[in-house]
Amino acid sequence: MRVGILGYGNVGKGVELACHKDKNVELVGIFTKRDKEKIKTQKNSKVYSVDELDSFKNEIDVLIICGGSATELPILTKKYAKDFNVVDSFDTHKEIINHFYNVDSVARENKHTALISCGWDPGLFSMIRLLGKSIFLDSEIYTFWGKGVSQGHSDAVRRIDGVIDARQYTIPKDEAIELVKSGKGKNLTVRDKHLRVCYVVIDEKADKNKIESEIKNMPNYFVEYDTEVYFITKEEMEKNHKELAHGGKVIVNGKTGVSLEHNHLMEYNLTLDSNPEFTASCLVAFSKAIYKMNKRNDYGCKTVFDINLFDISDMTKDELLKNFL
Amino acid sequence: MRVGILGYGNVGKGVELACHKDKNVELVGIFTKRDKEKIKTQKNSKVYSVDELDSFKNEIDVLIICGGSATELPILTKKYAKDFNVVDSFDTHKEIINHFYNVDSVARENKHTALISCGWDPGLFSMIRLLGKSIFLDSEIYTFWGKGVSQGHSDAVRRIDGVIDARQYTIPKDEAIELVKSGKGKNLTVRDKHLRVCYVVIDEKADKNKIESEIKNMPNYFVEYDTEVYFITKEEMEKNHKELAHGGKVIVNGKTGVSLEHNHLMEYNLTLDSNPEFTASCLVAFSKAIYKMNKRNDYGCKTVFDINLFDISDMTKDELLKNFL
Repeated sequence: MRVGILGYGNVGKGVELACHKDKNVELVGIFTKRDKEKIKTQKNSKVYSVDELDSFKNEIDVLIICGGSATELPILTKKYAKDFNVVDSFDTHKEIINHFYNVDSVARENKHTALISCGWDPGLFSMIRLLGKSIFLDSEIYTFWGKGVSQGHSDAVRRIDGVIDARQYTIPKDEAIELVKSGKGKNLTVRDKHLRVCYVVIDEKADKNKIESEIKNMPNYFVEYDTEVYFITKEEMEKNHKELAHGGKVIVNGKTGVSLEHNHLMEYNLTLDSNPEFTASCLVAFSKAIYKMNKRNDYGCKTVFDINLFDISDMTKDELLKNFL
Repeated sequence: MRVGILGYGNVGKGVELACHKDKNVELVGIFTKRDKEKIKTQKNSKVYSVDELDSFKNEIDVLIICGGSATELPILTKKYAKDFNVVDSFDTHKEIINHFYNVDSVARENKHTALISCGWDPGLFSMIRLLGKSIFLDSEIYTFWGKGVSQGHSDAVRRIDGVIDARQYTIPKDEAIELVKSGKGKNLTVRDKHLRVCYVVIDEKADKNKIESEIKNMPNYFVEYDTEVYFITKEEMEKNHKELAHGGKVIVNGKTGVSLEHNHLMEYNLTLDSNPEFTASCLVAFSKAIYKMNKRNDYGCKTVFDINLFDISDMTKDELLKNFL
């Protein structure tokens, strides 16, 4: 499979590493909107300007688009589905359905196959939630995130006047996890489930109390949570908060039995040293399925719910039946 | 979806309950080789003799076959794939590939769709193992089972001369799980990973020492493990060992990074009050996929690796994109 990478941020870098490792994948090139001469890759990959993508229409089997969900992916994935099979990790949950139909029509018209919202959430976590929901007619399903940096919440803090830099950690509360596991999670509020901790670098003239209050009362982002705010220096931020670790868990409580007397607990945990590299590895694995589906004339936009697991593997059917079932 | 159940043991009973609960499933009947008059169902389901199945060819969309993997399923699933879409939970791992091709040829010839080896292992655990293997090129994958009764090992003890009844619990060792989670599981032996505990009822004239030694040294089943043997009375067996609880976990350790410096831990745990009822719930959910695949003219034998998750759900695509991704 010949892969192109569009965008060379943290996820793009992870895709480069995953392609480089994989003897069944050829990395054709990294395409950037920045000055290609200034990009130093990790594995001596070829770098092109995004304007050169046109001439690679027949050289790339899947284009993996690594951009932000807020503004980039809604435009890019749809645009490039015209000339390529495309894969992205669009993660604004409430916009997925619009993004899906936008990409679907372009992909279908041009006989391409696209995969959106691939990664761990949306992605693997979605698969576990749907498995749980489908197996148990009576079930409660919970998702916890963290400990890890939430990009959206960090950005929201950065937009406050007087804030120079900010990092927001989402931390699941152990007591809530225990309640959920024991089937007593029903009345938990969002405040009960996660703690939000902000590390903030501010302009020396800014008013700490005002900023702290503005963060803690921010609607949608913080007001419904317990939030802790710590003011730190630029140096501390650089030294202590470069971490890309993340993780989370999906917990499904299901019931069966003549009078629903049997409890079942399904739990899926991820503990990731590098959030972008894990997401990147998911993107490459699922790209294999998209390439195979396209060869089977299965066009249009797909999600992880459309994928069968034979397709993400390079092993033969017989190897998988013998060793993985 | 109209479902038939062939075989009314513990799993068959679980399928009856799962069908009864599900407003999208109609249970046509339970088919038994026993005297149908003597079967008392849990939810007033209709019971027929297995000989009557012939006349239901056009009344049943999926026949769920609930039998033992040792002797029944290899014959039954293949046989009934001629007239029905069939689903089973065949779990003799090393025989799966033979069973697959046996069922595949009959199903294909008769334009039916079959699913074998559905449940949690093989089944959900297989899916997690393959996800882990495909996402990480560098990974170690471990499966732990228990605490729960192993049917195969219990049967093996029962075959010993002088043994009247036996129950074998497989118990994962906590120290091994911790080593595996911390990435230090590579040198673990089978003995390190699981403990086997047997509760045995013997004939009063039998030689305890001889039987204990025979169990502990039994090749394939016990000799490679630490095994504990307890002799109990028939009454104790009935009172304390009717439990159907089981569970287990799949742990995947993966590495990414320029020099594989990032560790990732993926963990999937099941804790089940009723092993057969959980397996039954999987069978019903995945039957929905088999029925849909058959309607799409996708014939032959399938495994969980062929299934996409849209197909196991009754929700519409839009509902799933909105609420489960």
